[in-house]
Order: sequence, then C-alpha cells, then structure tokens
Amino acid sequence: MTALPRGRTGKWPVAVLGATGAVGQTFVRLLADHPWFELRELAASERSAGKKYGEVTRWLEGERPGQAVASRRVIACDPGVVTAPIVFSALDAVVAGEVEMAFARAGKFVLSNAKNYRMEPDVPLVIPEVNGDHLALIDCQRRNRGWDGAIVTNANCSATVAAVALAPLHQCYRIRQLFLSTMQAVSGAGYPGVPSLDILGNVIPYISDEEPKLEREMLKLLGTYADDEVLNAAFKVSAHTNRVAVEHGHTICMTIGFETKPTPEEAIETMRAWQGLPSTAGLPSRPLHPLVVTDAPDRPQPRRDVNAGNGMTVTVGRVRRDAVLDLRMVALGHNTIRGAAGGSVLNAELLASTGGFNSV
Amino acid sequence: MTALPRGRTGKWPVAVLGATGAVGQTFVRLLADHPWFELRELAASERSAGKKYGEVTRWLEGERPGQAVASRRVIACDPGVVTAPIVFSALDAVVAGEVEMAFARAGKFVLSNAKNYRMEPDVPLVIPEVNGDHLALIDCQRRNRGWDGAIVTNANCSATVAAVALAPLHQCYRIRQLFLSTMQAVSGAGYPGVPSLDILGNVIPYISDEEPKLEREMLKLLGTYADDEVLNAAFKVSAHTNRVAVEHGHTICMTIGFETKPTPEEAIETMRAWQGLPSTAGLPSRPLHPLVVTDAPDRPQPRRDVNAGNGMTVTVGRVRRDAVLDLRMVALGHNTIRGAAGGSVLNAELLASTGGFNSV
Amino acid sequence: MTALPRGRTGKWPVAVLGATGAVGQTFVRLLADHPWFELRELAASERSAGKKYGEVTRWLEGERPGQAVASRRVIACDPGVVTAPIVFSALDAVVAGEVEMAFARAGKFVLSNAKNYRMEPDVPLVIPEVNGDHLALIDCQRRNRGWDGAIVTNANCSATVAAVALAPLHQCYRIRQLFLSTMQAVSGAGYPGVPSLDILGNVIPYISDEEPKLEREMLKLLGTYADDEVLNAAFKVSAHTNRVAVEHGHTICMTIGFETKPTPEEAIETMRAWQGLPSTAGLPSRPLHPLVVTDAPDRPQPRRDVNAGNGMTVTVGRVRRDAVLDLRMVALGHNTIRGAAGGSVLNAELLASTGGFNSV
Amino acid sequence: MTALPRGRTGKWPVAVLGATGAVGQTFVRLLADHPWFELRELAASERSAGKKYGEVTRWLEGERPGQAVASRRVIACDPGVVTAPIVFSALDAVVAGEVEMAFARAGKFVLSNAKNYRMEPDVPLVIPEVNGDHLALIDCQRRNRGWDGAIVTNANCSATVAAVALAPLHQCYRIRQLFLSTMQAVSGAGYPGVPSLDILGNVIPYISDEEPKLEREMLKLLGTYADDEVLNAAFKVSAHTNRVAVEHGHTICMTIGFETKPTPEEAIETMRAWQGLPSTAGLPSRPLHPLVVTDAPDRPQPRRDVNAGNGMTVTVGRVRRDAVLDLRMVALGHNTIRGAAGGSVLNAELLASTGGFNSV
Repeated sequence: MTALPRGRTGKWPVAVLGATGAVGQTFVRLLADHPWFELRELAASERSAGKKYGEVTRWLEGERPGQAVASRRVIACDPGVVTAPIVFSALDAVVAGEVEMAFARAGKFVLSNAKNYRMEPDVPLVIPEVNGDHLALIDCQRRNRGWDGAIVTNANCSATVAAVALAPLHQCYRIRQLFLSTMQAVSGAGYPGVPSLDILGNVIPYISDEEPKLEREMLKLLGTYADDEVLNAAFKVSAHTNRVAVEHGHTICMTIGFETKPTPEEAIETMRAWQGLPSTAGLPSRPLHPLVVTDAPDRPQPRRDVNAGNGMTVTVGRVRRDAVLDLRMVALGHNTIRGAAGGSVLNAELLASTGGFNSV
Repeated sequence: MTALPRGRTGKWPVAVLGATGAVGQTFVRLLADHPWFELRELAASERSAGKKYGEVTRWLEGERPGQAVASRRVIACDPGVVTAPIVFSALDAVVAGEVEMAFARAGKFVLSNAKNYRMEPDVPLVIPEVNGDHLALIDCQRRNRGWDGAIVTNANCSATVAAVALAPLHQCYRIRQLFLSTMQAVSGAGYPGVPSLDILGNVIPYISDEEPKLEREMLKLLGTYADDEVLNAAFKVSAHTNRVAVEHGHTICMTIGFETKPTPEEAIETMRAWQGLPSTAGLPSRPLHPLVVTDAPDRPQPRRDVNAGNGMTVTVGRVRRDAVLDLRMVALGHNTIRGAAGGSVLNAELLASTGGFNSV
Repeated sequence: MTALPRGRTGKWPVAVLGATGAVGQTFVRLLADHPWFELRELAASERSAGKKYGEVTRWLEGERPGQAVASRRVIACDPGVVTAPIVFSALDAVVAGEVEMAFARAGKFVLSNAKNYRMEPDVPLVIPEVNGDHLALIDCQRRNRGWDGAIVTNANCSATVAAVALAPLHQCYRIRQLFLSTMQAVSGAGYPGVPSLDILGNVIPYISDEEPKLEREMLKLLGTYADDEVLNAAFKVSAHTNRVAVEHGHTICMTIGFETKPTPEEAIETMRAWQGLPSTAGLPSRPLHPLVVTDAPDRPQPRRDVNAGNGMTVTVGRVRRDAVLDLRMVALGHNTIRGAAGGSVLNAELLASTGGFNSV
Repeated sequence: MTALPRGRTGKWPVAVLGATGAVGQTFVRLLADHPWFELRELAASERSAGKKYGEVTRWLEGERPGQAVASRRVIACDPGVVTAPIVFSALDAVVAGEVEMAFARAGKFVLSNAKNYRMEPDVPLVIPEVNGDHLALIDCQRRNRGWDGAIVTNANCSATVAAVALAPLHQCYRIRQLFLSTMQAVSGAGYPGVPSLDILGNVIPYISDEEPKLEREMLKLLGTYADDEVLNAAFKVSAHTNRVAVEHGHTICMTIGFETKPTPEEAIETMRAWQGLPSTAGLPSRPLHPLVVTDAPDRPQPRRDVNAGNGMTVTVGRVRRDAVLDLRMVALGHNTIRGAAGGSVLNAELLASTGGFNSV
C-alpha cells in the first residue's frame, strides 16, 4: 500500500463512466482497492442505470468483484448525478464526445480512454513516464474552453506500447522513419467484439481506423511541450495493424531509422537505463521498470510477458541491426491495462501527486 | 484431367523422399492422382524402410491415402534403391545435402523443398510463373558438377508468397526497398513442430533462420537469368518473421518503395493483369490466377483465402499508399502447397512440358 | 452430376429464407450448383430486401458466391413475394414460427432448420437415412392444418450426429439408457455468435436450451412411424453440452446401455453394415457412407474428419466396452452441413425422388 | 506468510527431482518462497546435471525464476547426491519407479506426482482435504518395504478435480454410479507435449492411459482407511477423456447416481458446507475454499475459474437433476497446480503440520 501524497488526508472519490463494458470492468478492477482513489460511483447507459452492477455486468475476467461493488446501483453518465469530482471514462467513442465534455464543463476531471479528444491541441494525450509534462496543457485547455474541469486522455493501445518502447530511443537518437506491424489481441475490440468465427485459427489483417490512430498519436506522444502547446515529433510513421487469436497483449514489430545511429547494444543500453520521467517514481500503478529489454531470442510473447509489472511494463526483444534502416525490434504490452484503463489510472496518479487534484 | 505433354505417351514415374513427414505427406497427396506423374515409390528413413506407408505415417490432414498407397512398402532414400528417375525431396535439411547430391549424381532429377542448395549459383530456385526461365541453370549445374541429374529447388514458403505478389510490381516499377512482416502458420514448422503450449493464444516473434532465408531468396527469385547465371535483384529487404496460431497460410505485411512509383490503382491493375510466364499456362497444378487482388477491406485471411486455386493462388489485399515509402499491401499464400510441395510439383510440370524430362 | 429423378424434366425452383446468415449461406453454397434444384430466390429480413445479396452478406466461408448469386436482389420472406414452391428456411426461431406457417399455408414446401415445429406431432423431423419414412406425416399435417404446403424439419445439429451414429445400434439392440457429452463447434451458434473473448483457450460448459433439444429430438428421430403418428423411442437420455474452440464439427462422447447387449465388435460390424434407408441410395447429397467407423485410436477429430462425405458422413470411433453400461464410443459430424443446411437439402432430395414434389 | 508449525524452528530443506520439466517448473515456482520449505536442490537428468538451472530450463510460464534459483547448478537425481531429506518428484513415469524407490530406501520423503506407485496398497494416494488420513499408510509402507523413507503420491489431475468435487457428496449420499467426460488442457501432457497441429481448432477424444487411471484412482481417493489399509470405494466409474485447446484447467462433466438421492439444492448445500479434513485448515497452500459452487449458468470455465484459490480451488457449477441417474454437474480444477505440483506441496504441508517430518 502506497501512502497518500504528502498533505493529502483522504482518498479522492472517483467514478467510472461506462463501467459495465470491457474497459470499464478493467477500471473497476484496478480501482477496487486503490490506495489513493475510492471508487464511489459506477455509471453506465440508461439501460443499466438503477440496476445492481453485478447483475448488469457480464464479468469477463479474473475474480468477480466483491459484494460491495457488485451490489452497488449503477447510475447515469450525467454530471448532475455523478458526485465524484474525478471520473474515468471507458465510454464508447459514439457517446464519449458529448458526455466527457459535459463532465469537464461541470468542473470534473475526466481521465478518458476514448479517442475523441486525443488529438485536440489543448488536450493532453499522456503516458506519464513518456510525456507526463504534457499535462501542463490543462491550463491552456481551461482557458480555451472556459471550463473548470479537464479532459486528459490515454493513448491508443498500440500507440502506447510503441511509444514506451521508443521514447528513450527517440530522446537519444531522434527517430526519422518508423515502420510498425502489429499483432493485436482480441480484447482490444471490447466485448462481444471479435466473433470467434472470424479469428479462430485466423489472422485479420485489418482493424478499422487503427492505423491512422497509431500513426498520428505516436507523434503527439513523442512530441515536446513548450509554451502552451505540444510540438509533435516530426518523423514519418507507417503501420500495418493485424488482429490475431490472442486474448491480451499487442505485439509490435518495429523497424526504425534514426538521425544518430545507435548500435543494437547502445540501443539496448539506452532502453535499459531509461526510467521515465522522475515525477512518476513511486506512483502506485507505475511499474518498477516501465520498459524491460529481454535477451531471450524468442521473446516478448503475449502469453508469457503480458503481465509483467502487473500489465504496466512494456517488454522489448530481438533488438537487432536492420539491413535497410538502422534497427529492428519487437515490443509487447498489455492493451487493456497499460494501453487503456491502467494508463488512465496512472495519469490520474500523476495528477494527484503533482497537485493537479488539489482543488478537489 | 490434363492431357500429357505433346509427344509423351505415358506418365513419368516419380518417387518422394521423406514421404512420411508433413511435407512428404503433402507431396503424396498432390501426386496420388497426378495426370502426368505416377507415384511409384515412397522413400523415408531407415527406421521406416520395409514397413507399410500407412503404418509408419501419422496422417495429418485430409482423407487418408487410399489402400494402394497405404499398403506400399517404404524404401530407403538411396539412389540405388529408388528406381524412379524423378524424385521429390521433402527431406530435412540435416540429411538433404548429402542425399540429394547422391541422387543427382546418380542421374536423377531432384525437385527439392530443402533449403540446402537454394542459394547455390548453379541451382535453380524456381517459382514457375515468376522465374521459370531460371531452369536454364540446369545445364550449367551439370557442367559444373559433372552429373547427369539435376537439383531444382522451390523457395522458402514466405519468400514464395512474397515473390508471387511482388513479381509483377518489380517487373514494372523496380523495387528499391522492401519491408516484410510475416504471420506464419504452424504447419510451416512440420510435425510435431510447434508445441501447443508455445502457440495457443500466443505469438512467437521469432522463427529460427527464417529472416535471412526470406531476405536472400527474394533477391534470387526476382533476379534475372542471363549467360549461365542469375543476377540477383538488387533492392534492400528487411523482414520480421512471426509464428501465429494458424494451421495453414502465411500472411505477409509488405511496405514497398519503387524506382517508378505506381499509384495503388496502377499497382492493382498491374497485379491483376499479370499471368506469369506464358510457358506455365495449362500446367496441371498452375492455378488459373496465380495472383488475385481482393477488394475486401479485411482480406486476405488465412482461414478464408488459403485454399484459393487449390492452395496455389496467392491473394493480395489492402493495397494502399504508404506514408514513408510508396505502397503497403498484405499477401497470403498456402505455405505447404504453393510454398512447399505444390511448388516443387509445379516445377516438375514445367520441366516436363518444356522438354526437361525428355531423357527419362 | 446426378440425373433428375425419373419422369422429371427440369430442376425444381427453390428459395432460401434467411439467406444472409450463417446457415443461410450454407444453403446457398449447397444449392448453387445443385443437380435437381435451381436456386431462384434469396429472401431475408426487411433490412436486406432490395439490396444485392453480395452486398448485404458477410460471406463467412469458402469461395464467395459467383456473380450470378452475388448480384441477385434479396427479396422479403413473404409467400406473396417468393415464387418458388419449395423453400429452405434458415430463419431464426424468433421469426420462423410465423413465417414458415405462412409459407405452408400458401402451399409451399418448407424445409426448415428452425427448432419451432420439430416436436409437433404432425411435423416430420427427418434424417433421411434414419427415419425418412417419417415424411409420411405430411399427409396428416395437411389434414390437421388444412394447408396444401408442408413443413419438414431437420434436427438439432447434435441430435443429428448422435442419431446417425445410434440408429443402427438402436435398430439391432434397443437402447435403454444413453449418456451424451458434447464438444460443439462455434459455428453452431451462428454469426457473430460466440465472442472470441469467451472461447479462445476456453470451454463453455453450457449452451442455452441445447440439452433439452438434444434429449427430446433423439427420441423422435429414433421413433417409429405407424398409423399417422410417430411413436417416440422410449429410452432415457441425459446430456451435457459444451462449446469448444472448434470451427466446425460436433464431437459427442456416448455411453450406452442396451436391451440386447452387443460386444464392441458386434456393434462395429452393425454400424459398418448399415446403409440407411434404401430409398436414400443415390440421392445427390447422400454420402456413399452415412456412417463410418474408424479404427484409429484417437479419432474422430473435428479438424481431420469433419469433411468426410462432403460434410454428410458421421464418423464414429473408440467403440469400447463400458464398465457401467454396455458401450462407449465417440461420434463426430459436421454441424452446419449434416446437422443443418445439408440435412434439409437431403430431406428435399428424398421428397423429390419419392414423388413428394410431383405437384410442383 | 504462514508461521512454521508449532515447535519447529527452521524451514525444512527440500529438493525437486525432474526440476526442468513442466511439472518440475511448477514445483520450483510454488516452492521458491514457501514459508515452511527451503528449496535447496534442483535435480534433473544426467544431461542437465552440472549446468545452471536457468540455462537448461525452457521456462514455460509466469516470471522467470530469480537469480538465486536460475544460477543454481542442477544436480543428479541420486539419493547420494541430493542432501535434502524431503524431495518432490516431477519425474517421468519411465524413470520414477526406480529413482523414487532409491530415495525412499535412502530414508527420504518422496512426494511424487508420478503414477508409478499410486495404486500400491501401502502407498498413500492423497488429496489432503479429501483423504489426508490415508497418510497413515506410511507406517505400513515402512514395515512392508523395510525403509525409513516414504513415498506419498498425489493423484492424476482429472481424478483430483473429480474427487474434490465428489468427496462431500460421497460422504453424505454414497455414490453408486459415476459417468465422467473430461475436456483436458494441453499442459497436462507436459512440454513439448501436444503438437499444435494436433490441437489448434481441434478436439482429440483420446488421452493415452488416462481413462483407467481416472477410474481406478477415484475409488482409492474416496476409499476409507482402517487397520493399515485403504478400502476402496465400491461404486462404478466410466470415463471419456478428451484433450481440448485450453492451456490450463481440466473441465469434467459428471453424471452421478447415489444411494441416498439428494436434490440439487441439497447437493449444493452439502458441497458449500464442506471444508475438508480439519487437519488441513491453515496449511499454507490450502485455499480458504477447496470447493466452490458457482450459481452462474455457464461456469466453471477454464480461462475464468482456473486460478481460483491460487489454482487450488475446484469450482463446480451447473448442478442439476439428471433424467437417468440423480445429478449432473460440471467441475473444473487447475491440472498442474491442484492436480499435480500443488497437490504434492499440500501433501507435504500436511505431513509437516502433523508431525510426519519430525524426524528430519
């Protein structure tokens, strides 16, 4: 159990929006016994509101939530109903745009997994170890939009895995060209998500809208904050995204060209030395090692490495010279933890520890 | 049923070396009712020799072979024992080097799936529609080696799929850079091959020695025959090879840079117009369309497209512009048919139809 | 190609109701080049009516239908719109009750895969080789219901596989007790059907309403027709039904007690000698062997045996003595062919060859 | 952390025989930080002896062992070399017979997962909560065999799962007939074990020698110890065993006849009230609930329930009336933890807490 940030005497009350879906359930699991946050409210669609959480939720994974959570009444995703000042949004993109804005306008902190606001210039798209300083955009956002709340987003699951792996290399050697080819888990599509008839013994070489998201979010994540704005990284990205018969864990093959060309050994050393932004040290969900480089010739593998660091560690392997560009390597991360709910929980922890939540 | 080549009055007797393994079984299946070849002998290791084929073979796929084949006695992989003048080799690389040479020295035609001789300058590495003219190396090979037989190889399974997809584009627009990322079926590892504990719900981002094979064979396949030698294609190739939980069918994501830059529409038109070398038209195993381009946004998929053209057609999809190089696309082909046994059978058919087997 | 029944000069026009779903697609595939039936109309829900079949159908398996079928306009499931006198119904149970009755009332022959009418006393529930004589119920049905059409049903997929395997044994030795435990393919749940997150690396020991269907349909299928009614078989049945990560093919473990107790050898001989009702010999979809007994110790297996007899053969293996009752064995059959669309097509063929369609 | 048994001042030193294989690795994982046992030695075949454990072990699951374990030298499976007085045997049956006897003869306690001695009348076959009192056979064993050591075995994985589920019911209502049909995980076959080509999208309705083991071990497990011997339970058992594409977790469908016939509600209440032998309360590996009955209509499921109680809890569901016998239900347990390594660790804990290890 991690002590509360200095000066804070009680847990922050939080709510989950879209709590019954796949990502919502992951939020509930991660927040159930959180040392800093108290999961006070579970909000979902009209259809579920008023019913017990345990009755309207088809629990997908791990132990079912305890009685305290299961028997709680689901409430509506309405800022007039939700009392918690901090909300985690697992809403579908179709509704997230409007609902999240309503919460921000009502003065709430919205930690969102939805894609809607990620690329807005005044909305932080954050992986704490990589670009936690982008949270400074919140001030700008409030001025621009005239609200007291804030929207802070975590990135697309594949973009998150790639960005954690590449952040130390980009910082040292400047990426110029990046080719990505992903093999993504079915949990990335939510529930019911991918029909089994589509994926058993199969590969689907297409995920709707995934390649553009991956390509553009990478550049914002690895961009630089200065003077109220984020200057995107300027390298070129090209992605293939594929769905495979894996439950959790996105595996990404990368081929990279740099301005300053590292040897594989130098790249490995750089990644191993990297600890992410110092402000993230000690956050409850931050893994000891956000980035691990394995020497095993055939790793990372989703089933064997996805839970490293409680699903928050990205594992890189097969770092080797490339015949066309400079380096090739493979990265793996947990798409629903690091790449979704866990990412937003860590964003909230960084806000909490750096005074962002002092007002609530 | 396809008539025998003009001037030929009976089927050519053939044998399979390594007939009990996974690729060997595929040879047996493809040759069982072949219109031009008569499967006369089944050869395998000492351990199996003398026993009935049906008893020593754990039949992996499709209907078991009929009584005629199942009750045949397996013989040794010895050119003094095998009487057929034409042999298909499904031998493991550990023994293929020596055994295939012994057969060639004894005057046999060896159609090999083994990797051992593929990159020898005087050994044809052939996909008939792509570079059937490389068979002309046989003369050079005989002169060099002083034997009456010949070794002709089919390519690595992934290299085959990629080369069929890329041949028309390379011919028109000259490839300069090529990035490949594969998702390969478990049947590519033979039997028992990949343990289920390694691949169920998993991805293995590594296949031993596969990337170098894929990279170098591509260049020979797309090379040019002239004056007794093959001048390899000169572009740069970089590959990631991965194993996925698919039974048959290698899926390959490709990103390509060209000298002359085609639009996606032009590339599609070029691939659709391509019919492969005219000398292959009408060969029994040649599919009507060696290369098919699909418009479906989420194809090709192994389970749905692998059997196109009886496993001899390569299907390409998602041809689209690339942000870094010129084009991206996905190709899929059957690894144990087009990429192994079927490839060598087609090689033999081309030899048969063009007079290469006239002496036997 | 099988010649038309004696005296018939043209194919019978047929339609498929619910043509866009998973079973509907299988009907379309089986009827596309049928020697006796001409697929004239494709009917589906309001939502699809008026659009081209190829555009509203997410084709799940095998080669896409040819242009002739793909470009046909889907029509409504309305007996006033459908002109074909014979319709194959792949309708969902929710609508099948009403729609099928409307077609029968309008004088159409309805060959149905829906569960709605299967257990009606005057509706034939038929597997031709097993109880094709139950078709005689049609007369009774017409008298009872006052319509000129007819409803004929195929059985539940698991019941079909079990009944084909058990028919010869029940005829010879009289079953007294039957325990079944199934492992059923995901295609049995249609499309999108089973979410991949529910079945990858998993078993679901429950299929809604499947056990009662299996238990009661078995007794009608193995019952005896006499004097305008079917006297159900009287033995006791107990079933466990499970869903497994298999694409096609239901595997059923059976433990059986008999009145007259056969040895395993006698049971095997009885099954091997069985040819089904003589009236079915030569029907286009009837496999040469409706029931095959394998000697392999580890068969039948879905991936290796499901396509036997073009998906119409049931394969039995592991016939052995039981310590509690008399025999144990394992049966396997194709759930969407023999156990669904193929079953109804065979029912129609039997009607066609025995004069049932003479009026149309 | 659980305190040492009263009167004991230090951990007992233990060794693992066959430490490099799949079950051996599970022993190592479970013993690495055990509160009562200190993993002192790792023994394996000649081939591995002398090398570092981390180098000769292909680690299959979870986090790799820490440096302390990975860098330890493997030693030979020889009682003259192994110094620990307590050894856990994950040896293959081919060698277990001889090696385990040698260790017992040398005065060691052998906690074995091998099948060799399970059915010997003087060897305890133990699941602590079910029949921990059978450990009393050790005295008899020592007298019979004239050795100071002892061999204590855990049961076959499927027999273990079934016995935990059935023990409370047998104690209350006396089983008379039992039908079992299993769906077993691939990890039950060890590593490399089941080839992926055999199990992807498939079911194998056969596991070598599994049905006899399951049938006979059930009767010993549920038997009664009295006067130096175990009187086996006397009911009849009939089993089908199947392999499915699941990583961990054996699912067992059961149909049961009793002398005293409980309603499903009574059976559920009996199972829920059952706590296993009181002597097992508080043992470090004993789960709070050895047996859990779920109300969910579609559980237990391997992927969702296998890790209950750290893999030591058996989950039962779908308890319902049977049409032929009395009850049907489904049980699930972790085959390599409760059904293998974890079972023997718990056996050792029971010995430790009840004075069995006082001499060492």
